[in-house]
Amino acid sequence: MNEATVPCRPIVGLTFRYEPREADCVSVRALLEATGVFTAEEVGVGVSLVRERLERGLESGYYFLFADSPEGLVGLGCYGPIGCAPGRFDIYWVAVTPEFHGLGIGRELLRTCEANIRRLGGVRAYVETSSRDEYAPARALYEHNGYAVDALQRDFYADGDNKVTLVKVLI
Amino acid sequence: MNEATVPCRPIVGLTFRYEPREADCVSVRALLEATGVFTAEEVGVGVSLVRERLERGLESGYYFLFADSPEGLVGLGCYGPIGCAPGRFDIYWVAVTPEFHGLGIGRELLRTCEANIRRLGGVRAYVETSSRDEYAPARALYEHNGYAVDALQRDFYADGDNKVTLVKVLI
Repeated sequence: MNEATVPCRPIVGLTFRYEPREADCVSVRALLEATGVFTAEEVGVGVSLVRERLERGLESGYYFLFADSPEGLVGLGCYGPIGCAPGRFDIYWVAVTPEFHGLGIGRELLRTCEANIRRLGGVRAYVETSSRDEYAPARALYEHNGYAVDALQRDFYADGDNKVTLVKVLI
Repeated sequence: MNEATVPCRPIVGLTFRYEPREADCVSVRALLEATGVFTAEEVGVGVSLVRERLERGLESGYYFLFADSPEGLVGLGCYGPIGCAPGRFDIYWVAVTPEFHGLGIGRELLRTCEANIRRLGGVRAYVETSSRDEYAPARALYEHNGYAVDALQRDFYADGDNKVTLVKVLI
């Protein structure tokens, strides 16, 4: 357990945990690929964050939350403090494998990330996402949970692919 | 020399170089502290980027440009590609030691960073800065050189301290 952890609300058949394992390098790759949303480069970044956390511990600045079914990993949350911005945190990923969509896992991962951020002294959570259609469900998850658009940067990821930054004040 | 380098326009008494040296860990700290603008944490980040570049080479993703006088380092530029956003680069730092302000060193560092970004395939350069008064000269440097405000995020760095992201399309 991290120093800052809060209990997750139980979801039938799932176990939540905070500590990454070596096997997560494989299962996080499989989960992110299964979503069908992320590019190969983005999947590689996700796996590299797990790797860095395993190697450097919390000094890496990457905090995780894993949702396991008896068959393996089905959900992932990842967040960490923003450098030089005290009390501000980025939520890097909330991802749920498609067969487990609609069960409230994403909302519970997000809620638990936010609760831990508060315990770490965080007052604002930021999420960066794309304006592309594939990301509409992700944006909907955040907007239904109190996030508002903080910035829209046109053509940031590529021509025609805008960056949408959302923020939630945690109180 | 990096693979991607362009000649700097000479400024009397100064030498420009691309390759960091071990001694830059000390001189970059001194330069950033001398500006009086950066927090201790920001100075630490700047030095850590030099360290990471020395250890990992260009794989670190951090490109540098140094301006040396016969007495030592007087100017610094640092930039690198933004992950998962092909052709987009961040300019992390352009800093000049106060005794050498007004000589056009900042402009020349910025111009050369941009030229190298173009040679690396970059089409957009981003700069993140603060809305605080201390950063007004930095914002002026960018705005006088073709950068426009792309996003304003209120209370990002701290309550009352907004993040201003500027962008320039490099053509």
